[in-house]
Amino acid sequence: MNDPSLNPAGSISRRDLLAMIGLVAGSSASYRAMASMGLVNESTYKGPIKLDGGAKNKSVLILGAGHAGAVAAFELRKAGYKVQVLEYNDRVGGRCWTLRGGDEYTELGGATQTCGFDPGLYINPGPWRIPYHHRAVLEYCKLFGVQLEPFVQVNYNAYVHSTQAFGGKPQRYREIAADFTGHVAELLAKATSQNQLNQAVSPEDAEKLLQALRDWGALDKDYRYTANVGTSERRGYAKSPGGGIGAAPVPSQPMAVGDVLQSGLWHHMSIGQQIEFQTTLFQPVGGMDMIAKAFQRQIGDLVRYNSKVTRIDQNDKKVTVTYVDTKAGGAPMQATADYCLCTIPLSVLGQIPTQVGPKMQAAIRAVPYEASVKIGLQFKRRFWEQDEHIYGGNTYTDMPIRIISYPNSNYHGSGKGVLLGGYMFGPNAYEFTSLPPAERVRKAVEYGAKIHPQYTAEFDNGIAVGWHRVPWTLGCAGAWTDETRAAHYDNLCAMDGRIMLAGEHASYIPAWQEGALLSSLNAIERLHQHVHSR
Amino acid sequence: MNDPSLNPAGSISRRDLLAMIGLVAGSSASYRAMASMGLVNESTYKGPIKLDGGAKNKSVLILGAGHAGAVAAFELRKAGYKVQVLEYNDRVGGRCWTLRGGDEYTELGGATQTCGFDPGLYINPGPWRIPYHHRAVLEYCKLFGVQLEPFVQVNYNAYVHSTQAFGGKPQRYREIAADFTGHVAELLAKATSQNQLNQAVSPEDAEKLLQALRDWGALDKDYRYTANVGTSERRGYAKSPGGGIGAAPVPSQPMAVGDVLQSGLWHHMSIGQQIEFQTTLFQPVGGMDMIAKAFQRQIGDLVRYNSKVTRIDQNDKKVTVTYVDTKAGGAPMQATADYCLCTIPLSVLGQIPTQVGPKMQAAIRAVPYEASVKIGLQFKRRFWEQDEHIYGGNTYTDMPIRIISYPNSNYHGSGKGVLLGGYMFGPNAYEFTSLPPAERVRKAVEYGAKIHPQYTAEFDNGIAVGWHRVPWTLGCAGAWTDETRAAHYDNLCAMDGRIMLAGEHASYIPAWQEGALLSSLNAIERLHQHVHSR
Repeated sequence: MNDPSLNPAGSISRRDLLAMIGLVAGSSASYRAMASMGLVNESTYKGPIKLDGGAKNKSVLILGAGHAGAVAAFELRKAGYKVQVLEYNDRVGGRCWTLRGGDEYTELGGATQTCGFDPGLYINPGPWRIPYHHRAVLEYCKLFGVQLEPFVQVNYNAYVHSTQAFGGKPQRYREIAADFTGHVAELLAKATSQNQLNQAVSPEDAEKLLQALRDWGALDKDYRYTANVGTSERRGYAKSPGGGIGAAPVPSQPMAVGDVLQSGLWHHMSIGQQIEFQTTLFQPVGGMDMIAKAFQRQIGDLVRYNSKVTRIDQNDKKVTVTYVDTKAGGAPMQATADYCLCTIPLSVLGQIPTQVGPKMQAAIRAVPYEASVKIGLQFKRRFWEQDEHIYGGNTYTDMPIRIISYPNSNYHGSGKGVLLGGYMFGPNAYEFTSLPPAERVRKAVEYGAKIHPQYTAEFDNGIAVGWHRVPWTLGCAGAWTDETRAAHYDNLCAMDGRIMLAGEHASYIPAWQEGALLSSLNAIERLHQHVHSR
Repeated sequence: MNDPSLNPAGSISRRDLLAMIGLVAGSSASYRAMASMGLVNESTYKGPIKLDGGAKNKSVLILGAGHAGAVAAFELRKAGYKVQVLEYNDRVGGRCWTLRGGDEYTELGGATQTCGFDPGLYINPGPWRIPYHHRAVLEYCKLFGVQLEPFVQVNYNAYVHSTQAFGGKPQRYREIAADFTGHVAELLAKATSQNQLNQAVSPEDAEKLLQALRDWGALDKDYRYTANVGTSERRGYAKSPGGGIGAAPVPSQPMAVGDVLQSGLWHHMSIGQQIEFQTTLFQPVGGMDMIAKAFQRQIGDLVRYNSKVTRIDQNDKKVTVTYVDTKAGGAPMQATADYCLCTIPLSVLGQIPTQVGPKMQAAIRAVPYEASVKIGLQFKRRFWEQDEHIYGGNTYTDMPIRIISYPNSNYHGSGKGVLLGGYMFGPNAYEFTSLPPAERVRKAVEYGAKIHPQYTAEFDNGIAVGWHRVPWTLGCAGAWTDETRAAHYDNLCAMDGRIMLAGEHASYIPAWQEGALLSSLNAIERLHQHVHSR
């Protein structure tokens, strides 16, 4: 049921041309060609979507009011389509979700948690960061006036921690980063000056390399990484410089290269270099659901809440969706439209009878969902700032909690504070999800106390969301492999009769809001082309 | 006139003990001793100052209401001292100074500039960043309720630029950082796997090193830094991953190792690793002078403004300071007190007859002042965000402007925007200072347009502060060398009869607000001890 007319073979795009250059001449030629056309690192987002020429009186039924559904509702209505949205929850946003004091959440199995946070405090159980290159998210934030503030991913004064290294004592990120960099620079400088790289770099380049290593690794004049003011200006001083009498600094002693390497803590050094965590990274002021609330202000009037889809049918005239009201109950109801954009997570959609062809059916069933748990912990005071001078950012550990994330707002706040006390994936996430919520919280406090002993006295209350127990997603995001993508991705995204799918699962940016938006914008662009190709 | 009683030789502090261990056993033993005492990386700031036991009815005359003078006035009054402050300007804050629309500034030579910025926009001609370990600044911000927001120093999407490399085309920080790291990792992995490091690391460590280099440098399974999804997740893609159909990413091609090394742009890779620029770095919401205004609210009633000190005398009973009113004119006036804390910059103090001993006289004359220029440029729109997706942070260049700094607040703002269009030191600063202000601005626009062509069409107005022409400092900060410190620093800081000096120049953290505060806190602590030792 795929519609080949959507990809007319007669025209060749700039991108196709470049792909051909790349295949013929190798990637370097392709790179140069692209650079000369100004395309390198261009985002996939092409700016505000243009759905020109009217909607030909067509209607679209959208299933799910997460970002994919909400942005489609917003843009399709603007383009003239008749739009209705069915949403399982009583709010817009889906996984773009923020928990605040007084919020109730009931998970699969019936356990209900009431968030006990103080006013102004929150956690985002779902997405919590916006990279600078997630341009669709940023553009809608701008359009809707959602205020942004920096999300600190790497904090040089937070900790990296291994239960197996340094006697289990957390190390400041700063010290491991400086010492790893310094030792790498010293080792490579040694190899370079002993002419052991002759075949890899020219003599002119070797000379520059030595300069670079000294500069970057804080090496001394003999290319050594040693205790001195230069290295202490990276890793911190034994005694910091001060003012007045007795203020001279005392350098600190770098760790031995073997200690740094055997600790495994170098693993955390690449986090801030990853494009999704590079500066400048953002969060909305007040919680991620400020984006959801902004969408709700725009398209809330189109949404029927508490609507659980039980069946999706289509024929060559229309799509018919059967649903029940989860609050009011009563007999199943039906909604119809010319087209349907279904953004229901595949984990849920796979359990709903859906009249699509075998290829899309197979694709829907091909994608398992990631397990993940997030735990918010409220403490009586912001001890991480007051005692340890940690402002925002993350501590990393090899304990199951993986991460402690400090709030990136209200710095120096005098009241209580909320940490993200754990963010688990994989086996640990399954284990934590299997526990009752209170037990998940208790364990997160127990682990965290090994890094911050203050946990024990200062803990106030907590809340734990295990995504495999969230009734409307049954997991946190679609988990593609190269193999499942090759076999199923295009079939998942292609229009099937009058039905199209969208969401982070129908993107190459899984688990990110940007994936949901780009997936949906791509789908409605194709839908609009389809309507106009008739 | 130094008072040896302030450093009683009979007692030995923990720090002195550690210094002795260090001298006897070498720095490694000292480090271990310190670590076991919990002292490593402790800040010099020891928490709120304690000036207990009353002021014995003593009075202190403070010269200068910059941070050093203001904090002394605040703490000494609290301790019971009678305090008066003479200040040359009509405001508290000194170099902690923010220029906004409507502000007038007249420099040495008579040129007057009126700031033409739109409401809410500003530049800080002086300090503009607060490191996480500048605990005195942070503590007073907290005490006075000065709100803080992150200052982005390193922005992976901003540029690094050399007129001599890549045809003068700016490169994204992200690409140079990824490629430098990747090539360094590949070169060292090659040396390691060819057993060329045998003597530097053990076989067990070499194995860990290879793992670390792959992880950190984004090397492939053969320890190569090549074009693939892994390296593009650092440096960016040729085509970024998207959503829906046709969304597969296309990796970008790393630069050749020689191009990266010869560009010299690796020099900018260490900036974010320097302790003063490491995350989390702050700025006050609304401008650095929010700290000055907070001090002014606390101690403004103690300050006599527009008071130019012309003479400082002392005898064994009191200090007498002669000053003139720069606005009202009239005959010179005198103020007296039991003690004087003088925070006047040495560049100015050296020209004021001051009755201190030859050692302090020599110290005052020993410290030249740094040249520096900052230029604020207002543009008609925030094109760096709108066109180039640069949110906060800095672009670095080898042109005289050195830096373009993007605002770290009001992200996505729709009105005009102000950049720091240049921050010059050394010879370039002297050259720029010698130009009339309008010419400094014009040149900054001309240079900046080589990085942002939008400058030409979007420039609105600008203001330029050359610190050597600021009448009340004649330079931006004291410029110590190891030699001048050894000869003069202790003499500068030691009490001379009834006179003590304080300010960033009397600290080991020159040019930073923390230096001014710590210097002053140390001075008044010694003054208080002196009063109580009588």
